[in-house]
This record gives sequence, structure tokens and C-alpha cells, in this order.
Amino acid sequence: MKEKNLSRRHFLGLVGAAGGSTAVYKTAMALGLMQDTGPMAMLELQRAGPAGKKVAVLGAGISGLTVAYELERVGYDVTIIEASRRTGGRNLTLRHGDRVDEMGQQQVCNFDDDPELYFNAGPARIPGHHRRILHYCKVLEVPLIVKANIGRNAYTHEEDHFDGKPMRIAQYMADARGLLAELVYKAVDQNAFDQPLSAEDRERMLYFARSFGDLGSSGAYNGSMRAGYKSGGFGRPAEYYAGTEFGALLNSHFWERSSFSFENPDWGEPLMEAVGGMDNIVKGFVRNIKSPILLNAQVQSIQLQGDGVDVIYNHNGERKKISADYCFNSIPSHFMAGLPNNLPAEYRKGLNSLKRGFGFKIGLQMKERFWEREGIYGGMTFTSQRIGEIWYPSNGIHGKKGIMLGAYKFYDPTEFFDRMTPEERIEYAANCGEKIHPGYSDYIESGVSVPWRRMNHMMGCGTQWSAEARERYYKLLQQPAGGRHYMIGDQISYHSSWQEGAMASAEDALLDLDKRVRAATSISMKG
Amino acid sequence: MKEKNLSRRHFLGLVGAAGGSTAVYKTAMALGLMQDTGPMAMLELQRAGPAGKKVAVLGAGISGLTVAYELERVGYDVTIIEASRRTGGRNLTLRHGDRVDEMGQQQVCNFDDDPELYFNAGPARIPGHHRRILHYCKVLEVPLIVKANIGRNAYTHEEDHFDGKPMRIAQYMADARGLLAELVYKAVDQNAFDQPLSAEDRERMLYFARSFGDLGSSGAYNGSMRAGYKSGGFGRPAEYYAGTEFGALLNSHFWERSSFSFENPDWGEPLMEAVGGMDNIVKGFVRNIKSPILLNAQVQSIQLQGDGVDVIYNHNGERKKISADYCFNSIPSHFMAGLPNNLPAEYRKGLNSLKRGFGFKIGLQMKERFWEREGIYGGMTFTSQRIGEIWYPSNGIHGKKGIMLGAYKFYDPTEFFDRMTPEERIEYAANCGEKIHPGYSDYIESGVSVPWRRMNHMMGCGTQWSAEARERYYKLLQQPAGGRHYMIGDQISYHSSWQEGAMASAEDALLDLDKRVRAATSISMKG
Repeated sequence: MKEKNLSRRHFLGLVGAAGGSTAVYKTAMALGLMQDTGPMAMLELQRAGPAGKKVAVLGAGISGLTVAYELERVGYDVTIIEASRRTGGRNLTLRHGDRVDEMGQQQVCNFDDDPELYFNAGPARIPGHHRRILHYCKVLEVPLIVKANIGRNAYTHEEDHFDGKPMRIAQYMADARGLLAELVYKAVDQNAFDQPLSAEDRERMLYFARSFGDLGSSGAYNGSMRAGYKSGGFGRPAEYYAGTEFGALLNSHFWERSSFSFENPDWGEPLMEAVGGMDNIVKGFVRNIKSPILLNAQVQSIQLQGDGVDVIYNHNGERKKISADYCFNSIPSHFMAGLPNNLPAEYRKGLNSLKRGFGFKIGLQMKERFWEREGIYGGMTFTSQRIGEIWYPSNGIHGKKGIMLGAYKFYDPTEFFDRMTPEERIEYAANCGEKIHPGYSDYIESGVSVPWRRMNHMMGCGTQWSAEARERYYKLLQQPAGGRHYMIGDQISYHSSWQEGAMASAEDALLDLDKRVRAATSISMKG
Repeated sequence: MKEKNLSRRHFLGLVGAAGGSTAVYKTAMALGLMQDTGPMAMLELQRAGPAGKKVAVLGAGISGLTVAYELERVGYDVTIIEASRRTGGRNLTLRHGDRVDEMGQQQVCNFDDDPELYFNAGPARIPGHHRRILHYCKVLEVPLIVKANIGRNAYTHEEDHFDGKPMRIAQYMADARGLLAELVYKAVDQNAFDQPLSAEDRERMLYFARSFGDLGSSGAYNGSMRAGYKSGGFGRPAEYYAGTEFGALLNSHFWERSSFSFENPDWGEPLMEAVGGMDNIVKGFVRNIKSPILLNAQVQSIQLQGDGVDVIYNHNGERKKISADYCFNSIPSHFMAGLPNNLPAEYRKGLNSLKRGFGFKIGLQMKERFWEREGIYGGMTFTSQRIGEIWYPSNGIHGKKGIMLGAYKFYDPTEFFDRMTPEERIEYAANCGEKIHPGYSDYIESGVSVPWRRMNHMMGCGTQWSAEARERYYKLLQQPAGGRHYMIGDQISYHSSWQEGAMASAEDALLDLDKRVRAATSISMKG
């Protein structure tokens, strides 16, 4: 039978020891686990022995560079084979004069030549718990600064809600908290339970709801200073916004679509970025790697041998072969089907089961930092329009110009922007921006767009694993085929689309190799 | 009669048009108001005429410097009279070799000589809606960077809760949201109302609660990935923390004491700081002000005359007098009673009614940035211990050393730290820090403490207005006594303890002066 009232027993179950003695701290947090965040210790790999030291790394993206850097340090003979003309893979920062490798389109980045005017077309943020990428930023001496990811003065904009006007995120969030808290307050205050709560439980719960939502003393939410000042607040008394009507809030979509990303650990404030562009991490690796990095070198065949891996590649028109003891392969999984190889059938099925993500970004050079006049110093605006998000730079504050992210779609199977010319994309983004910031188009001096599905040697970005594929293939693909061929990259992780995922994959592969090498060394020493 | 159930009518009143047509956007937000944030336009003051141009500015803190800068620009003859040996007032950054002007204690800052090793003993943060201070940072060319204020990987620590162990803020906040949302879910799900909600209203509310709190599909909160990973999440599947028991959370104090400051506009992400120390704003003013700034010049008398203000001051042992047309006075209100003056009686009563705040900070030079190993890259830890807060620097990421804020008490009438020697304060702070970060003391290389109540020429910080004083005296004190003597400073604002309050006061005084000058000009042109 469905109860009409909250059961008091259930409720007190929730409340637990409220009002009584100090409750037992039941969560599993242990200080001992904390070393799992922040810069990690250097990998302590066994030095390469006289045999088994030749390594081929396929792809000079973040995972490949990590492997090369670590193995070189312990004496391996490493060769990095990169299909494209550049290092970094999806870690791509565009600046003045950079060419975009979009297939079938000619695009050159026409931003001014200024170190603050960069566009991170790939990864753009690093949270504090991504200990691997932070470790490498530290050891490679790549300077980091805080990147404002959440901007409470930025907007949420929904074409069909709030008369299509942008609303400050602070205001929306204050109202969402307030209205939720009001519901709790009423439920507790009106004793919507089959037996009354103790006076002490009741008072504490009411206080909690009031504090959480900034409710009035009677438990009503009528707006909050948390939404920001409507006027005054400094020389004159503050005037506040009325709260949004609950119905309007509930019908709107920001709360369900985007606002809760603020709570995601990967958006855990503070986020960071590399000073001057995320590709300074790539440059840090390249500066510190002595092994050859062959650019414009396309792999044509991967053949497991009994005691190694033969990789055939085309380098500047010449067919070459490297017989490596180990191969670390970050080639995107969906390219592997077309690449002659003798990897085990189940392994190949696994690679074929992975779906490559879409992903689209536009960078816009704005001739003035107009957002700063609106009190916005970074963060992002969310819109129901196709551009999805607008980001405001938090570097170069108060400078003359700035690079905005004019569109960010992570998954759009319609390939809406992909099918446009670069000019059409900018025009479309400009028109969307106008609905949020009147006059937006006039600030745009130049733009550059990166549809990852059309980028040469990439044709996609973050990998999508179905639950079934994860169950069936993940552990298999983490293991080296034939004990010699490791698939690496963010594609082989639980954190695809983040540099940390790529490095986790590299770390796991290196640790696996190390275990094998140590076991072999131990056997040979015994033998 | 007290109702046992939520009235459906009340509930639908809250829900409004939920499930129906687009609701009217009732909040008063208008795009036209947005110019009230971000850098403001330059003040367009009337140029000084041949008469009435001599100005005395008492105090070289933020408000005095603002007034001097603006009036000098339009031709006034300005003299700044500063009692102490330095400019800036409470805008105080301590670095290598700086002496602290604490009365009765000898303190020199022994930090290493390094531009990243600074301690903002006064204001340390600028939010995006503080348009005045941002305006001056822009025009004075003071570079700003984002300052991480909230660090989700930092801790809340309560000696009497959770076994006295620190808990990550992300975890606490995820649990608080989850448990609140679970209550709402149950109330809606169990139809704790006298009539059922429409199916559509009900579904949308349940979905809202689930999204808000990251509840399971049945509406229960059993922990959330928002709390951070207990393990894995990159190369291996993530393991999550169990949620905190509601009773334990409700009995704890973080939610009521501190967590909601995150929602305060003054803590609205992103916050900023001046690169290399907040006093670079002061230096920016000093660089751009040509008028004399007399240091070590103590005011001894302020006398309104019919057409001006006579200020007598002691400068390097010499008694001097300035007969000014206008006086802008930022001397702390509680010093005014002891200073001979002929200000109107009600005006003096008003000044006497203001209470000066306490305020205490310790800066600690740490020999290693140990917090970064815990995934903390800025933000603050809150503790129930007397130190109140610990701040982690977000400048100089991955450098060798860093300056932490080791204690921050804003109001402690017991003067607990004030009564200690500088050495005792550091030792006390070190012991508190140990409970949060074992080994904390060993990292401390040197420390410096600033009890604002004991700082010479200050003897207190932010001003506290009672509701009665505000009602009775605020408007009066905003007006110039005798049309010639303006009280300024954050003390004459609704935003005391913030530089923005000081500047708002300066701006209001300048605008008042301008109105009077324009009126007089207009009369004299007519005459």
C-alpha cells in the first residue's frame, strides 16, 4: 500500500543520530588514500638490459610522449613514429599563423601575434586530482596558472525560457538552492510525517534548510543576495532580485543539462591551464626527449613476431621498418581495422568495438574584452543554441583583446558544424552569441574552428565505450598483445578525452612492462 | 489549526506553471543593469576652477589614494597626509625584510626574497562585480590573475565530528546536496500532500531532486562521484565514497558556519588578486599620483572654516597647517574622538557609534608545497580550531616554496592571538595545522602575524555598523560636514573590509563634490 505520509521511521533513519550523540563517521575516507592525488612520484622503472631495449612508440600525442620520456630515462632505445606533421595529437593550441589540419578545408589561424592570444582546441583544463599530468607539468617545468572554469557572473541562456534572456548563473543557482530548500523546510515544518520529529531534530533540520537555501525566517524563499546585487551594495543599500518562480525554474533546462557539471570532480575548482597554451606540455616533453621523433611517418603494418614487433612505416616517401622489442601504440582504435596487422582476433574485435567521439570548438579573437565590462572574468555561458557553450578567457585579464571559445559541442551526431565552411561556422557562432551579448559579432576579428571528426590523422576525439565493450574487452586491451604490443592512449582508460586518461594508460602499460622485465631479470639471475 | 500535510494548493503555488506553458520570467533582471559590474567608466569630474581647488586628503589608504588620483587629474591641488611611514593602509603585502608595525612587538618578515613569496595581510581577493577596484587595476595597469578561493580538494575539519579527521570539501558538499535532495524526493514520491500532484509535475520534481543530489534511480543518496574518487577512475574503474550519514552531517557545523560563503557574491568565482601582491594596486596609484604624499604626518586638528577646512598636522616634528577648500578624511572613525575638531555634534556622534572590527592573519613560509601532493592547488581549509581557516596559495604553482595563510580570524573579541607573542602565534597555528596536515610544523620556515587591532595607526579593521547607527547616521556621514569635509573609507560604505567599499565611498564623495561644483559654476555663470 502506498503511504500518503513520510514514515517517521524512514525519516529518522535518514536523520540518524541527529540531535543526539556524535555520530560515527561512516564514510570510507582514509588519510592513507590521499597520495592518490597531486603530483605522483616518478616512475621507478627497471633500467633496460642489454637485450630487449628497442621500443617503437606509435603516435606523438600525450600517451606516446609519456612512454617515450619514461623509457628513454631508463636506457631504452626509443623511436617515435608520428603520422602527422606535428607532435601533440589532440593537445592542440592554435596561435597566429598556425595551419589547421582539417581535411578538405583550408584554415590558417589569423589571431594577432601575441602570447596571450591562444586557443586550446583540445584539452584546456587540468583539475587538481589529475596527478599524472600535474606530475609531468612539474618535472617538465611547464608553468601553470589557475583557469576560471565556473564564472558565477556568466550566464545560462535558454531560447524558450525566461523570455530568451540570459540569466546570471549565480542567480539561477541561488534560486535552485532556495526553492529546493523551501520544499524541505515546508515538509519538515508541517510535519509531513506520521509521527512528529523531536523538537531538536526539527529545529536543526529547519535551520539546515534555511541555511542551504538562504530562506527567510518563515522558511520562504524570496530571492537571495547570493543571486548578486540588482543595485547598490557598496555606497548604497543593496537591492536584490526577486527569486525565479519555481515553475519557471523547473521547466527550464539548465539544472538538468549543465549546472551539475559544476559538481563533477573534473570541474573541481580550481582548474588550471598551462601558461600561454596547453601545448606547452607537449613542448616540455619534446624539449626533454632525446629520442628521434619522426614526423610525417605513417605506419603501414604492425606484425607481432615471437620476440618483438615489426612496424613498417612510410617516412617522407620511403618505406622503412623498425624491428622493436616492444611497441606502444596510440593509433586511434578506428584506424586499426584498416592497418595490416596480425594482432589476435579478439584484440582486434575489441578495437573495432570502440566508438570515436565527435567534438567541435571555435576560437574567436575579440577586439575588446567586452565580457569584463559585464563583470565576467572567466568561466562559461551555457546556451540552448547549437554552440552549446561560450568560454571567456581568464588569462590576460584587462588586456586589449582576448580569445573566446565561441562554440563547444562535445557530441553532435548530426555533424552540424562539420558540414559548414569555416566562414559559415563563425557566422553561425556570431549569430548565436548575439542572443547572449548584443553586439557580439562586431567584436569578432577572426576565428578558427576545429571539428575533430575532420582533423587529419585523428578523425574523432574521445573514445566511447559501451558497457558491453568495457566488460568484454577493456582488460584484454590493457594487456600487451603477444606480451609485446601495448595499445595506449586515453582510448584505453576510464577517462577518455582528458590528458590524464592518456597518461594513466601510459603509466599502466609502463608498469606492466616493468613487471615483466623484472620477472624476466629475476629468472635470468636465477638461471 | 496546524496542518499535518503540505497543502496541495501551497505546493502548486510553489511549482507555479510547472508542466504547463512557459512561465513568465518574473525576476527583475534587466540587461540594462549590467553596466553596474565590471570596470566602470572614468569619473567625468568638472575641472577645478581658479578658486576652491586646494584639497587635503587624510590617509593614504585605498579611499584616499582614489580621491587624490581623481582630483589631481582634473586640476585640484592635492596634498595627502599619511600618519604612518607607508602608503596603502590596510592594503598591506608583506615580503622579505618588511617590518610589521604592530605596537609593542618587533616583527620583521623573514620570507625568502622571491616575488612569489608574498603575504596579503589585508585584502587578498577581488570578485568580478567589484567594478571600481577592477577599473583602477585596469587604468593603473596592475596585472591580475585568478586566485583560487574555493578548493574542492581542500578540507573541512571539525574537532568534534567525523572523528576529528579532515574531510574533503567536495565530499561534504556532495553529501549535503544529496541528503537534502533525498528528503525532497521522498516528500514528492510519497505524495506528502493532501491531494496528488499531476503526473507531469511529479516526474519533473523527482528528476530535479535526483539531478540536484545525484540520487539513485530510487531516490536514495548513497554517495556520489561528485565527492571525488576513493580510488581508480583513470586506468581502472572508479570506486566512490559512501555518503556521510545524514545525522552526522546535520550535527556537524561546516554547513552552517562556512560552506555557504561559497554562495556569497564576494566569493563568486572567479576571484582575482594582483600579480605579486595586492599592494601593487597601491604602488599603481603612487606611480600615477604627482601630488605630495606626506608620510609620518599625523593630523592634530581639523577645523571647519566658513569656506574650507584647516588641518593641522605634525610632519617630522614640525607643526604644519594646510588651509584646504575641501578635506577628504579617511582617518579611522574611532580615532576621531581623540582628535580636536569642530565637526557638528551629530556627525561626531555618528563617528563614535561605529565599532572597529578585529581581524587576525598569519602568513607562513612553507619549505615545500606539500598541499599540492594532496591535490590542493589553492582555496582554503576550514577548521573548528581557533585558526579558523588555512589558505593555500594558487600563485607559483609547483614552485619550491609557498606562503600559506596559517590563521584567519575575522572577529575574535577575546583577542586570543593578539595577546600572544609572534612566536607563540606561529607555534599555536603550527599545532592546529598538524591536525589537518600531519607534519605541517616541519614545513614552516618562518611566519609573520598581523593582528589589526594592534597595528599602529589602524587599531582595528573593517567597521561594524549597528542597524540603529546605519539608520541614524549613515546618510549624514556620507554628506560633507559644512559642505567641505568628507568622511571616506570603507567605514562609510555597505561594504566594509573590502577595497571596493573604500572606493565606493571615495566615488560617492567625489560625485557629491562634483555636483556642488557644477551647481556653483552654473550659478556663477548665471550671476
